[in-house]
Amino acid sequence: MSNTVHLSLDEVSALALRVLRHHGIIEAQVQAMARVMTAGERDQCHSHGLFRLLMCVQSLRQGKVVRDALPVAQHRSAAVVAVNAHCNFSPLAFEVGSALLIEKAHHTGIAALVINNCLHFSALWPEVEQLTQAGLCALIMTPSHACVAPAGGKLPVFGTNPIAFGWPRANGHPYVFDFATSAIARGEIDLYRRSGRTLPEGWGIDENGAPCTDAATVLQRGAMLTFGGYKGSALATMIELLAGPLLGDLTSTESLALDGRPGGAPRHGELIVAFDPRFFSGRDPATDQASAEQLLQAIRGQGARLPSERRYAARAHSIAHGVDIARALHDDILALMD
Amino acid sequence: MSNTVHLSLDEVSALALRVLRHHGIIEAQVQAMARVMTAGERDQCHSHGLFRLLMCVQSLRQGKVVRDALPVAQHRSAAVVAVNAHCNFSPLAFEVGSALLIEKAHHTGIAALVINNCLHFSALWPEVEQLTQAGLCALIMTPSHACVAPAGGKLPVFGTNPIAFGWPRANGHPYVFDFATSAIARGEIDLYRRSGRTLPEGWGIDENGAPCTDAATVLQRGAMLTFGGYKGSALATMIELLAGPLLGDLTSTESLALDGRPGGAPRHGELIVAFDPRFFSGRDPATDQASAEQLLQAIRGQGARLPSERRYAARAHSIAHGVDIARALHDDILALMD
Repeated sequence: MSNTVHLSLDEVSALALRVLRHHGIIEAQVQAMARVMTAGERDQCHSHGLFRLLMCVQSLRQGKVVRDALPVAQHRSAAVVAVNAHCNFSPLAFEVGSALLIEKAHHTGIAALVINNCLHFSALWPEVEQLTQAGLCALIMTPSHACVAPAGGKLPVFGTNPIAFGWPRANGHPYVFDFATSAIARGEIDLYRRSGRTLPEGWGIDENGAPCTDAATVLQRGAMLTFGGYKGSALATMIELLAGPLLGDLTSTESLALDGRPGGAPRHGELIVAFDPRFFSGRDPATDQASAEQLLQAIRGQGARLPSERRYAARAHSIAHGVDIARALHDDILALMD
Repeated sequence: MSNTVHLSLDEVSALALRVLRHHGIIEAQVQAMARVMTAGERDQCHSHGLFRLLMCVQSLRQGKVVRDALPVAQHRSAAVVAVNAHCNFSPLAFEVGSALLIEKAHHTGIAALVINNCLHFSALWPEVEQLTQAGLCALIMTPSHACVAPAGGKLPVFGTNPIAFGWPRANGHPYVFDFATSAIARGEIDLYRRSGRTLPEGWGIDENGAPCTDAATVLQRGAMLTFGGYKGSALATMIELLAGPLLGDLTSTESLALDGRPGGAPRHGELIVAFDPRFFSGRDPATDQASAEQLLQAIRGQGARLPSERRYAARAHSIAHGVDIARALHDDILALMD
């Protein structure tokens, strides 16, 4: 028996739908979540694909999720809309809010979507991509659970605090990046711990703030580090402030304190900013697009990769050929319906 | 004779005013530029203080500056205002535009200021600070002259592309950062070249993209690197796109090509985004401020410094005691009026 299971993307989606329905989540949310997980699997971002069903069901079993809550949108101004997820997952809140955000951005040139009280398990790039499809540039950020120390410190204050950006391109896929402001994903450090390998320098510190390459110490008593030293640490601080207190929502420290037990999806807020280029430039849009293409080609032309290229290549392959997922994961997912 | 000259802040300002007036710049611009330079000297950011007079006069002598051009503001929407500096320096364009930006942000919750065709010599933190004084969060970015290679590449594409952020605090100075997305300032590498010292690893590459610690090679044939590897490189790309083609203005490569000769202030655009917290949070503002303070205290409480603390300490000292500037610099500045 092969240790992988081959699935078409329709089968990936169907499996996610079955599991989520089994757990009594409201249907609109089931659809939104399955779309996000299928996109992750399709782009071979396996950690944000079907694997996330395990995390989501854990959150459900921990009683953190209001599974029939519908997101409620509130117009705050001509350019700001807030959506309260009421302790359901974020994807439906984003779907409801992004339609309003796009409308606002098309009227005011710049607009913001605030998502509050959402359980968050997804990558940010599917959301960024959706906004670029409406011709918008997008900037998205969220806090998470505190596990990352500030530069020069020793105690966790920040989450892995991802930031994502998208730029629409006239022909083909948008320019998109989506990265954690931690030096590395927490899951990656956990993989080192399981396999007993030594961490590279720069990923973590011990309880005294000294550089530490022991994964267990970093995870249990020490802290992770940000990427890029004090500059990465400053960015992580900005994400805490803009996607936490600015939104009237939790910092990573507050989110961890609220949850107590780790393992599920953290609850917090999310900030989405959209820019409609038509209001920003006084030139012919074709000139601006050409200038942006020249920049991106100058990067690619010297052998450097653009951030999302690997995902787009995986996407083309998955759409044509389906995906293989680990049999052990597939078994674990089926067991979620026992 | 001492090799420094002691000046009160009024004397710093008066010196800047004299030099700028001597060169025939329009008075409103003279005032705006002197304020920015005095602030730099006051906060002991000497590279953005009176020293910048040399760069500005070089730009004037190169014929790059339209010294009597007044900035022209254009409402693009309820939330976007664009100011054309018409090839004069940026400070007056910011002063004109920021008043309109603040008004818009107070009405729409989020707003943007586009500055086009400005000669840029200043740090971004004085502008960030001014917006926090109006109770706004601010995010500012600009390209510059191309001298930084993308991660995995070998040819300069990005400028040092600074990004700055500010968060207003109820009591005391705002939280402010302002950093280049290059690993280090270009001027710093030049200091290594002058003194024949070897560069630290990670600052630059040679013409083949190999790590290089020879300052002259990095500056003349190779390229500088971004901070934070591929993540810093992605941020630098975002700054190029958002503060270049989005605004209908120049990328760092286009700015360098336009100028031809280096040495003066680069001409390009600037993007300023302002957030009014009152539209983003559904909670009592005092709760949000307390939550933000808890975050910032958690950083400081473990011995990590907040980004602008050194500047604020220098400021208090300079206001009370004045500043000392190098006599050689003082002589060079006086010679600008010969």
